[in-house]
Amino acid sequence: MMEQESVRPFLLQARYGIEKESQRVTLDGELAKSNHPSTVGNRNFHPYIQTDFSETQLELITPVTESVEEVLAYLEAIHDVAQRSLPKDEMMWPFSMPPALPEKEEDIQIAKLEHHADVLYRRYLAREYGKRKQMVSGIHFNFEYGLDLVEQLFLAQTQETSLEDFKTHLYMKIARNFLRYRWLITYLFGASPLSEARYFDSEDRPNEPVRSIRTSQYGYVNKPDVQVSYESLTRYSQDLAENVALGRLSEEKEFYAPIRMRGGKKVADLFHTGIRYVELRNIDLNPFDRVGIDADEIKFIHLFMLYLLWTDEKLPADDWVAKGNHISDAVSLEHPTKTTAFYDEGQQIFTEMLQMIKELDLEGSDLVRTYQNWLDHPEETLAARIFVLDENEGQAAVATEWGRKFYEQAWAHPYQLAGFQEMELSTQNLLFDAIQTGIEAEVLDRHDQFVKLQHENHQELVKNANMTSKDTYIAPLLMANKTVTKTILARAGFRVPAGETFGSIEEAKKAYLRFAKKAFVIKPKSTNYGLGITIFKNETSIEDFNAGLAIAFAEDDAVIIEEFMPGTEYRFFVIDGQVKAVLLRIPANVVGDGERTISQLVAEKNADPLRGTHHRSPLEVIQLGALEQLMLKEQGLQINSVPEQGRQVFLRENSNVSTGGDSIDITDEVDESYKKIAIDAVAALGANISGIDLIIPDKDKPHENHEDYGIIEANFNPAMHMHIYPYAGKSRRLTMDVLRFLYPELTH
Amino acid sequence: MMEQESVRPFLLQARYGIEKESQRVTLDGELAKSNHPSTVGNRNFHPYIQTDFSETQLELITPVTESVEEVLAYLEAIHDVAQRSLPKDEMMWPFSMPPALPEKEEDIQIAKLEHHADVLYRRYLAREYGKRKQMVSGIHFNFEYGLDLVEQLFLAQTQETSLEDFKTHLYMKIARNFLRYRWLITYLFGASPLSEARYFDSEDRPNEPVRSIRTSQYGYVNKPDVQVSYESLTRYSQDLAENVALGRLSEEKEFYAPIRMRGGKKVADLFHTGIRYVELRNIDLNPFDRVGIDADEIKFIHLFMLYLLWTDEKLPADDWVAKGNHISDAVSLEHPTKTTAFYDEGQQIFTEMLQMIKELDLEGSDLVRTYQNWLDHPEETLAARIFVLDENEGQAAVATEWGRKFYEQAWAHPYQLAGFQEMELSTQNLLFDAIQTGIEAEVLDRHDQFVKLQHENHQELVKNANMTSKDTYIAPLLMANKTVTKTILARAGFRVPAGETFGSIEEAKKAYLRFAKKAFVIKPKSTNYGLGITIFKNETSIEDFNAGLAIAFAEDDAVIIEEFMPGTEYRFFVIDGQVKAVLLRIPANVVGDGERTISQLVAEKNADPLRGTHHRSPLEVIQLGALEQLMLKEQGLQINSVPEQGRQVFLRENSNVSTGGDSIDITDEVDESYKKIAIDAVAALGANISGIDLIIPDKDKPHENHEDYGIIEANFNPAMHMHIYPYAGKSRRLTMDVLRFLYPELTH
Repeated sequence: MMEQESVRPFLLQARYGIEKESQRVTLDGELAKSNHPSTVGNRNFHPYIQTDFSETQLELITPVTESVEEVLAYLEAIHDVAQRSLPKDEMMWPFSMPPALPEKEEDIQIAKLEHHADVLYRRYLAREYGKRKQMVSGIHFNFEYGLDLVEQLFLAQTQETSLEDFKTHLYMKIARNFLRYRWLITYLFGASPLSEARYFDSEDRPNEPVRSIRTSQYGYVNKPDVQVSYESLTRYSQDLAENVALGRLSEEKEFYAPIRMRGGKKVADLFHTGIRYVELRNIDLNPFDRVGIDADEIKFIHLFMLYLLWTDEKLPADDWVAKGNHISDAVSLEHPTKTTAFYDEGQQIFTEMLQMIKELDLEGSDLVRTYQNWLDHPEETLAARIFVLDENEGQAAVATEWGRKFYEQAWAHPYQLAGFQEMELSTQNLLFDAIQTGIEAEVLDRHDQFVKLQHENHQELVKNANMTSKDTYIAPLLMANKTVTKTILARAGFRVPAGETFGSIEEAKKAYLRFAKKAFVIKPKSTNYGLGITIFKNETSIEDFNAGLAIAFAEDDAVIIEEFMPGTEYRFFVIDGQVKAVLLRIPANVVGDGERTISQLVAEKNADPLRGTHHRSPLEVIQLGALEQLMLKEQGLQINSVPEQGRQVFLRENSNVSTGGDSIDITDEVDESYKKIAIDAVAALGANISGIDLIIPDKDKPHENHEDYGIIEANFNPAMHMHIYPYAGKSRRLTMDVLRFLYPELTH
Repeated sequence: MMEQESVRPFLLQARYGIEKESQRVTLDGELAKSNHPSTVGNRNFHPYIQTDFSETQLELITPVTESVEEVLAYLEAIHDVAQRSLPKDEMMWPFSMPPALPEKEEDIQIAKLEHHADVLYRRYLAREYGKRKQMVSGIHFNFEYGLDLVEQLFLAQTQETSLEDFKTHLYMKIARNFLRYRWLITYLFGASPLSEARYFDSEDRPNEPVRSIRTSQYGYVNKPDVQVSYESLTRYSQDLAENVALGRLSEEKEFYAPIRMRGGKKVADLFHTGIRYVELRNIDLNPFDRVGIDADEIKFIHLFMLYLLWTDEKLPADDWVAKGNHISDAVSLEHPTKTTAFYDEGQQIFTEMLQMIKELDLEGSDLVRTYQNWLDHPEETLAARIFVLDENEGQAAVATEWGRKFYEQAWAHPYQLAGFQEMELSTQNLLFDAIQTGIEAEVLDRHDQFVKLQHENHQELVKNANMTSKDTYIAPLLMANKTVTKTILARAGFRVPAGETFGSIEEAKKAYLRFAKKAFVIKPKSTNYGLGITIFKNETSIEDFNAGLAIAFAEDDAVIIEEFMPGTEYRFFVIDGQVKAVLLRIPANVVGDGERTISQLVAEKNADPLRGTHHRSPLEVIQLGALEQLMLKEQGLQINSVPEQGRQVFLRENSNVSTGGDSIDITDEVDESYKKIAIDAVAALGANISGIDLIIPDKDKPHENHEDYGIIEANFNPAMHMHIYPYAGKSRRLTMDVLRFLYPELTH
């Protein structure tokens, strides 16, 4: 069936979702004593960051995605958020097996959930299985065949007449084949060879090392009397119901199968919904990857799932599954560096997989061959590699070291969000905050910085982290038109620099009398690195005026003569009628120490991890190009000059952060009266999110009259990252302010 | 003082506003019997279109503007609106003297105003002066010297210490000089030489022809016992108060001075507000210009006002004014073709004006010389030219003929708005509708189509006639991203064509199996006149598929393969949750008559006044360029072919109106179910104003399932003019719908 023309275009269509558990530990590898981080949104609704059995056990959950890249991007991002939401002295334990457990079982904290039923269920589990076994962690991998694929398979057969029934039969077959062949997953990716102190509290324990304690009979499994048939959904459901009725299980979800059929809230729901997808539960944490699973592993599992569809069952259902369980138990407890007893069957599975790949013209044969090779080289399997490392250093030391490595990774560039690093920093920050808060965040277009947010029925679209439904269509168009903006602000009573634009030098010369006695600036209409600009502060002669015009017209066909406003320019970031940040930007500079050259000082300043290139960091490195050298020359300096102790040397005229300028947060220092002006001016423009630039001669002296400030412009797509990660001063988490504005119901 | 360096930059600074009265008449020149047009917004608040004394007397009012061009632009626009708001068989009488008046005075209808006080005042005037005299029309010209100019003059003197007092003195001097020299305005621009039937109902009438009945003692003037001194504001105010107290005037506004001091609601208010501007009231309608005044006249009056400032008074105030009144009365009643008795004084004024222009280095000497020349050539004056025409044809016939000419002008391009014709048609329509409704409309940036609307305290900004505060910032950004738009629509359950974009032909070829059995289209990502597009409707062979890719990749580096949706594309224009218009666009075409050639048929179709070029008209002319000729060739035709009777020959593939396509309104024909889809889809995008394109196989058959429509795209700046002036079908006044959406308080 899978070879049919109609089916083949859709073979690789699938949807994935990952749940990953991790124990929170201190940087010394001890189980954390703290509560679930309060920086993270409420566990009542949080879609990404939950707790499993114990208060220390994080459960990280990706949304359902349609590609390997996407599911890993989300898992990476959620990891960054989870790690950076923990106290600075905590990290995630990278192994499935928990760190050394407390001596007293009561010191293992059950998750402090709000809903009493959730707590009661965990208490029941603690009584029934003991708390220690619940502390193991792993990956739950949700897998769904593509809808087109299933539909085409349905159309290609004649036995089933209902698509829902067909799907259910298909997934039941998958479940049986998975149970039969799942040992191969354990062989390759089993990664819990050794337990840590006090995981086992009795002599009923394996003879370590093994391939996977977690998937073995010593792992977290149901008691042997719980038996369920996979022959059909009807029998499966009946058996589960019987186990619950007889009290062997408290409820259906206590059935810890290596594969679960999903689709409705309860198993009985599957009869109307059909089985929609399966949850694979036998995957240990891969400690060589900080998110516990890597792309190759997922791609292999995908091909393995296609193989389970492709291959026929060779025994009656219950026998087939029982045989699989038997082999799985055996492989789990094999010594990790030894050849498996099921080597031949392994070779057969790989050979058939490669045959399938060839016949269906799929990609992935190299990958399958790599893993096939591990049959001959058990030392390549995850369990073996961990065991070898453990033998040398001790498992706790290895886990701590690796946990720290991942911890350092998460903190190295805190302004970035793994998985989304090619997006704008402000969008990365917004995604971080949404994930942390528990707002569902989906990137609709990475290149266009288009994000969809959702909480319950409340959807919001956000572009560039600041373009939202909270502003009107017309407000940014107004701000984009600098002339009209000035008109509106001036009419509303704000001071803006009066100016005129001239298209010819003759026309401009006639304006002399109107400006001669004022302070004014002549500049090309399109300013470019300050070229062609002349500032006149006192009474200006006609000769100087005309000379200034000549300089400006040499740079552009149109020239602006504008009132000059003395003072310093500040960016006020207004959101929802409040000034959330005020920033001073100063041009690229270094401060001399009387010893080092300018180029050495620049190199040192550029070593700051906040500085990078191409807007991948909140600050840009200082260049030493032609413009900077010209600027030095004008000050009588060269890149090899050694400025004296304390002398600030500027390398640029313009204060843009994008050309190496420094950003300095002064939100708490600027007088409140100027904040009021910024708020009122943004309101006069009808805007709700805007970065408005004010010139202020003395920011400490309260605003008194029309002369003590001027509004330069208002920006409809203001940079946010420079406020969140300033060169100096306090961080202002503007992306969180945007979320608060969009979702007051969540954040107020 | 005016020669000082500090003053000179501001000499030509001024603000203007014009009020212009006109009698409504039938196209035969008879006084209209209809009421004030109901298409025009309520007279209680209307800022632009009012009624003066009688129900037939329109009063058109411009806003205050800062240039001659602007004030005339508004006056032109308001004229267009007023004319096109009248019944089709009415026009404006172009002369100051009214048309033949009814035999019975009671047939002259007093304006039917809502406020009883307004009606009572008009009844009083009717009793006091008779209704007939009230029927004369003219121009009231509001003039204000620039604020900078007045301020600089104030700074250049030492006598006055308060700017307000200085201004009051300045304007009192202007008033006196104006009264003294105003005869020159009457000489040049007096334009009421003859009365029509029954204007005078007694023998107390002038010996016609004269220069200006209206400004003479036989015009609409106060009774001789009303005397007011202009010596100072105090005396002026006292005298007015006394006249009212003695019952000579019912209230201050009954004082019909040729110049009024303005600034507050009442004359007494001027003591705190200062005089802010003056209202010149002695200007007859210039019937040679459809708006009653032309640019040269305004420019001359401006220079004349500067001259009044420049020249000294030569007698005590009351004597000075009395002399002026005397001369004015005399000049008004002179024969229009005769040399004036005050020729010498006229020459002196002109000589001094030219001297002033020279000394102050102003422009306008040519203009002044032209009018100076009229002293020697009284036949050039308006009154003389009218009189000569009247002598030949009779004044009523001349007025009717000219009124009709202006009527035709106003109706020639009803989709344009005079004064704003270089703006986009949709913005011209919006301005028209705003002016008609009585919403104050100001163009903030002509090039950027930026308009400010205001009604009482409710301000709205509108760009491109459809970008408003009613849409959010994010909705148009969403619509601009076609891919994200499709994603959002598809998730909300709407049918959109599934498609994929490919960057290389190799990559695209792999998609064959996914499309082979569907109807699909291969097209270059950037479509250009339909080049490179291939449509596949049935099962497609790999050869045809690859050939289609080759054709598309020859046009562009990126190619889209998209589900093909059969049917016709319609544009649904949604505003505020309602479909306001549905349009079918069909490619440029002609229909044969078996006689004429294609180029003749095209020429005939292009003669439609709705067709023009460069988007200056709602439809574009059909070209006969290379693309059209290629298209004809493919049909075996040439431009000289004679298509048979009834054969529709297409000259374009694409249906754009911009390439000569026809726009056909089908709002009332399309099934309601599709309108609901359009409304719901626009809502799903979070938009409030959008033009959404649907493909529908059968617009008459109600929507039943997912197959019977598809959404192509939603437009965030949809064209409006093609709905307002379609080639066929009903006009849909979308700009008025936008205004209704913005100002429900005015229009609901």
